[in-house]
Amino acid sequence: MDDLFLGVDGGGTRCRARLRDRAGRRLGEAEGGLANIYQDFDLALDSIATTAAAAIAAAGLPPEAIGRCCAGLGLAGVTDAFRAQAVVEAGLPFASVVVDSDAAIACIGAHGGRDGGIVIAGTGSAAFALRDGRRHAIGGRGFALGDDGSGAVIGRAALHHAVLVGDRLAPTSSLAERLLARFDDLPAIVEWSRTALSRDYGAFAPAVFEAAREGDAVAGRILDEAAAALSAMAENLLGFGVDRIALIGSVAAELADRLSPTARAALAAPISDPLDGAIRMAGGPVEGFAVTGPIGGLAS
Amino acid sequence: MDDLFLGVDGGGTRCRARLRDRAGRRLGEAEGGLANIYQDFDLALDSIATTAAAAIAAAGLPPEAIGRCCAGLGLAGVTDAFRAQAVVEAGLPFASVVVDSDAAIACIGAHGGRDGGIVIAGTGSAAFALRDGRRHAIGGRGFALGDDGSGAVIGRAALHHAVLVGDRLAPTSSLAERLLARFDDLPAIVEWSRTALSRDYGAFAPAVFEAAREGDAVAGRILDEAAAALSAMAENLLGFGVDRIALIGSVAAELADRLSPTARAALAAPISDPLDGAIRMAGGPVEGFAVTGPIGGLAS
Repeated sequence: MDDLFLGVDGGGTRCRARLRDRAGRRLGEAEGGLANIYQDFDLALDSIATTAAAAIAAAGLPPEAIGRCCAGLGLAGVTDAFRAQAVVEAGLPFASVVVDSDAAIACIGAHGGRDGGIVIAGTGSAAFALRDGRRHAIGGRGFALGDDGSGAVIGRAALHHAVLVGDRLAPTSSLAERLLARFDDLPAIVEWSRTALSRDYGAFAPAVFEAAREGDAVAGRILDEAAAALSAMAENLLGFGVDRIALIGSVAAELADRLSPTARAALAAPISDPLDGAIRMAGGPVEGFAVTGPIGGLAS
Repeated sequence: MDDLFLGVDGGGTRCRARLRDRAGRRLGEAEGGLANIYQDFDLALDSIATTAAAAIAAAGLPPEAIGRCCAGLGLAGVTDAFRAQAVVEAGLPFASVVVDSDAAIACIGAHGGRDGGIVIAGTGSAAFALRDGRRHAIGGRGFALGDDGSGAVIGRAALHHAVLVGDRLAPTSSLAERLLARFDDLPAIVEWSRTALSRDYGAFAPAVFEAAREGDAVAGRILDEAAAALSAMAENLLGFGVDRIALIGSVAAELADRLSPTARAALAAPISDPLDGAIRMAGGPVEGFAVTGPIGGLAS
């Protein structure tokens, strides 16, 4: 019995799962906790199993239906075949499992399994392309040294500016005033920063978008720098030979207009989402598309 | 019996102590582990006591001589009177204790207790000035959102550039090649960055100095940005009314030539070091200077 297709998109903040049947009908969907196998392997596995079970329950199916699922898992932290294999061998209760990165399922979803690239700008940033069966991944180097163009880096740049303003080392701005008003004083920001994670910094990105819309020059500069980083990634993917690029992630829409002309010219709206990319990777049908075999994850 | 003067300079990576007698004679000196009371209060206290005991031993005095010491402690993490008071009340075995920040003792030392400012550029960065009994502290906001101009920020900027080069998102440079050669691959850098502390980033600053000396443009730009941050701090201190500024810390000398003309014009060589500043703060004499009363630390 392997008549169900389960797509899982596991990231650093949450895990989502979608269930479809052989006819491509959407049966249920659920959301659970973080599933970045690099940050916490066991917790990620637990999130995947829990979220999958919730999707099955949402579909009105009995718990044992999990054993009928062909699962496609796109997980943050899957950076090579060894890590993918570790997930495959972890004893998840599915009928079969194909594992790849969260970027891979997003790319498969965005281009319906055809060649193309994606630039992801959410809490983190990364770019990925599939062309003629070859894969090309850049960025995704984490908050400390990478993630340019991401919400976390945008939030950090804004807070850095606010701290400079607080120390009278830079002229003030409406952005800085907006951010400083959220803390008691500078030591409170420093205190906060000692334990803040990338998603905590990312939570300040909307304030930057808002300030930029109202004409704040510093906010505009921060977003231009972020967009330049995404443009560089997009142009790199074009150099790999893809001709359509989907810009996805929670902050992508805010930056699209600021991309370079070259990058903007290649933008294409995503055909489907990462969850349907994961279902497609698992060999499952997706509403409105022909059934294809597995795209070939890193391990199956 | 309070005929000994002990100066302690406690920072995020090490603790140093110096012992002088009433005549200002240097009796002994020692170095111990980290003493940032904010990072780890108990460990800092332990480092202070251990390093003080080692300085007493180095002076050829018996352990109980620690009770004869008027101690001046300049400690990283002392950001307000409450934190200073917590150290005073922690039961350190000295005859008396005056506590202030590491910046304060550096400033007292650099200007022999007279008005003046300091710009510190070591693993972190900060600026501090004393004028007419008033204190003025800026920067020192930590690696996540501050420390512009510091060795850690220089190292991080260089590694960020190297990661971009590794992903072919920026043109290569001798600096990037130099840094990339120290790691197996990009994932190894990402792995390293997940647990790297500011001092680990700071360890890459010398490679940036070296590349800049050899004419690498990216290294030069990183150092110019660092120097601009230090210039902004120096100019801020001048606005506070001091007319001499000492540039101190492990990376300061490398950046002096890149400071703004205004900042450079105010530079003055330090008269003595932070340890003698701490001794002076404790009311002790310092070779070559008149005996003064306590400068007035945050708590005594």
